[in-house]
Amino acid sequence: MTIDPVTLTADLIRCPSVTPEEGGALVLLEKMLSEAGFTCTRVDRGGIANLFARWGDKGHARSFGFNGHTDVVPVGDLAAWTVDPFGAEEKDGQLWGRGATDMKSGVAAFVAAAVDFVQTTPPDGAVVITITGDEEGDALDGTVALLDWMKDNDERMSVCLVGEPTCPNEMGEMMKIGRRGSLNAFFTVRGVQGHAAYPHRAKNPCHALARLMDRLASTPLDEGSDHFDASTLAVVTMDVGNPATNVIPAEAKATLNIRFNDLHSGAALTQWLEDQAALVDADFGTETEVKVKISGESFITPPGDLSDLVAKSVQAETGVTPELSTSGGTSDARFMQHHCPVVEFGLVGKTMHQVDERVDIDQIRALKAIYSRILTDYFA
Amino acid sequence: MTIDPVTLTADLIRCPSVTPEEGGALVLLEKMLSEAGFTCTRVDRGGIANLFARWGDKGHARSFGFNGHTDVVPVGDLAAWTVDPFGAEEKDGQLWGRGATDMKSGVAAFVAAAVDFVQTTPPDGAVVITITGDEEGDALDGTVALLDWMKDNDERMSVCLVGEPTCPNEMGEMMKIGRRGSLNAFFTVRGVQGHAAYPHRAKNPCHALARLMDRLASTPLDEGSDHFDASTLAVVTMDVGNPATNVIPAEAKATLNIRFNDLHSGAALTQWLEDQAALVDADFGTETEVKVKISGESFITPPGDLSDLVAKSVQAETGVTPELSTSGGTSDARFMQHHCPVVEFGLVGKTMHQVDERVDIDQIRALKAIYSRILTDYFA
Repeated sequence: MTIDPVTLTADLIRCPSVTPEEGGALVLLEKMLSEAGFTCTRVDRGGIANLFARWGDKGHARSFGFNGHTDVVPVGDLAAWTVDPFGAEEKDGQLWGRGATDMKSGVAAFVAAAVDFVQTTPPDGAVVITITGDEEGDALDGTVALLDWMKDNDERMSVCLVGEPTCPNEMGEMMKIGRRGSLNAFFTVRGVQGHAAYPHRAKNPCHALARLMDRLASTPLDEGSDHFDASTLAVVTMDVGNPATNVIPAEAKATLNIRFNDLHSGAALTQWLEDQAALVDADFGTETEVKVKISGESFITPPGDLSDLVAKSVQAETGVTPELSTSGGTSDARFMQHHCPVVEFGLVGKTMHQVDERVDIDQIRALKAIYSRILTDYFA
Repeated sequence: MTIDPVTLTADLIRCPSVTPEEGGALVLLEKMLSEAGFTCTRVDRGGIANLFARWGDKGHARSFGFNGHTDVVPVGDLAAWTVDPFGAEEKDGQLWGRGATDMKSGVAAFVAAAVDFVQTTPPDGAVVITITGDEEGDALDGTVALLDWMKDNDERMSVCLVGEPTCPNEMGEMMKIGRRGSLNAFFTVRGVQGHAAYPHRAKNPCHALARLMDRLASTPLDEGSDHFDASTLAVVTMDVGNPATNVIPAEAKATLNIRFNDLHSGAALTQWLEDQAALVDADFGTETEVKVKISGESFITPPGDLSDLVAKSVQAETGVTPELSTSGGTSDARFMQHHCPVVEFGLVGKTMHQVDERVDIDQIRALKAIYSRILTDYFA
């Protein structure tokens, strides 16, 4: 059997797999991979569907892994779409629909490449495919569930390639060898309510919050490191909800997001946020509660065999040398890095999460060719 | 006839005159004052009831004026009251109910004093009483309507005493010879929305708002003037309402209140706020809209004949020398000051606007005695 990655992408787009819905996507892939000789196991947990598939011997020392997801973000404003988001319409050389770039095309490309490869040149080793339905959601029962199950069942990957879109504008220009960490911090400043005409009798939590947020936002976290850009901090909301102009409120809240490189840890940043809050509390007599949720620590797979392998294949197929980047948001590579070396490479992600998400059909074919070459070179 | 100010206060409390409801309060007072020989006119406007009453010759060069209001603020959390807020219950030497201090007792005291005075020692002059039903509301159709009507009808006051509660803790300790001005400023900071992972592609209005509010709140406006405390600024709310931790919002809002003394004008403060916003916009590339609503400019009746008259009477009746203050919120004196010299004196306002609002019965009697002495001395 030969799988056309464009047809498969279209078939997957037609599965309405908005997180946490499976939408038929994993059922389709399981059937296809089973027919191609993969041993498939559905690793469902917490209402989330996940698929583990292996060709070759379990636990083989040369096990090449792919990771991806079939769940997609909601369509958002349906009226703003010019096509049916689950219609997989082809026009102008593009395939349109939710998940077209993020990342049903990536999944289709590596599934097509893997099936081709094991059928035409069966390697001495294993090809392992993990596909989750919880990458766009809380990610608690997706790749994490797959890795838990793999550990319990002595399954392994020697290296892992995550097929997320990684190229900002041009096919081949960027791969990811790590990701920044991310945390959200939720602040509640408690003061003393009072009449706006008598501010000396109150303790104004708005004043404390404004100073704290200004200080945090004004402090550079670092200037970047060998493989990372500078860490960033963004206050994303401040909320009081006081409708009375003559009342100083008792409480004020804010939330911020930090994307941090390998010069920081979630724990150290949490301590810094708490220390800064305490300094401002000392100024204003307020009490600030800081709750931090660490989405992921930063990680890096230092440039080496795996990144060389991917870069060489990208270069051979596209003529472009990919930058080894650590920019951007989080991905399931943050979980995979605990299991084995991991890099990410995929196509141009410009329209991901947007209305009228779409992908160049040529890019899907190019991506399949790159993944095929990576497999060939890895097992050579 | 003799009017007992305590009974009258209780009768007025039983009138549910929450702004803009007349509640029977002005009807009661009009009847009483008419019977005592006052010429009464209802000056209703815009759904608000107001009462003008004069004893003596219209436009007399010696016309002593009283001003007060019978409207009250809502009861708030009814379940939190230990009494019926419109029951006028007497217990522990106090009269309980909404408006007990603010300011049905004040109205009762000056009405009782005025009726006593004109009946027992008819003066060569006039006693003018203005009572509004729109002091706690927008105040557009209350004392302003009375003054408009007085102008159109050649009615006058030579001086005016507003009977609002003025004493913080002890009867007699404070009168008001002016009031600070007040303004509310509403800020909308507009930036550019973006992903929290790529803050350099966005313009974060939260950061601009935090800096602007911190700067404004940290800048002393002045150190006070001859008759005024330092002006104050209180940020009362900051609101964004962004539930997504990975999105930098497009817009952030805040509101602040300034109470300002005679070193400032509403216009100059507005300019300062706009200038500060422009400086912060220059830092962040944001665009900040500032809408200012000036509730009232500051004003003062400099210490002199009127304040001496009131202070002497207070001292004689209570043994306490009142401080000549300009502190606190706004009152209808801000309108009266355009007509004639105005001061404010009343009882202890501790429970005003609160649940279980109540007044010491002794204070009502003392207040009536003070107002009576002021009338006697004024016409002596």
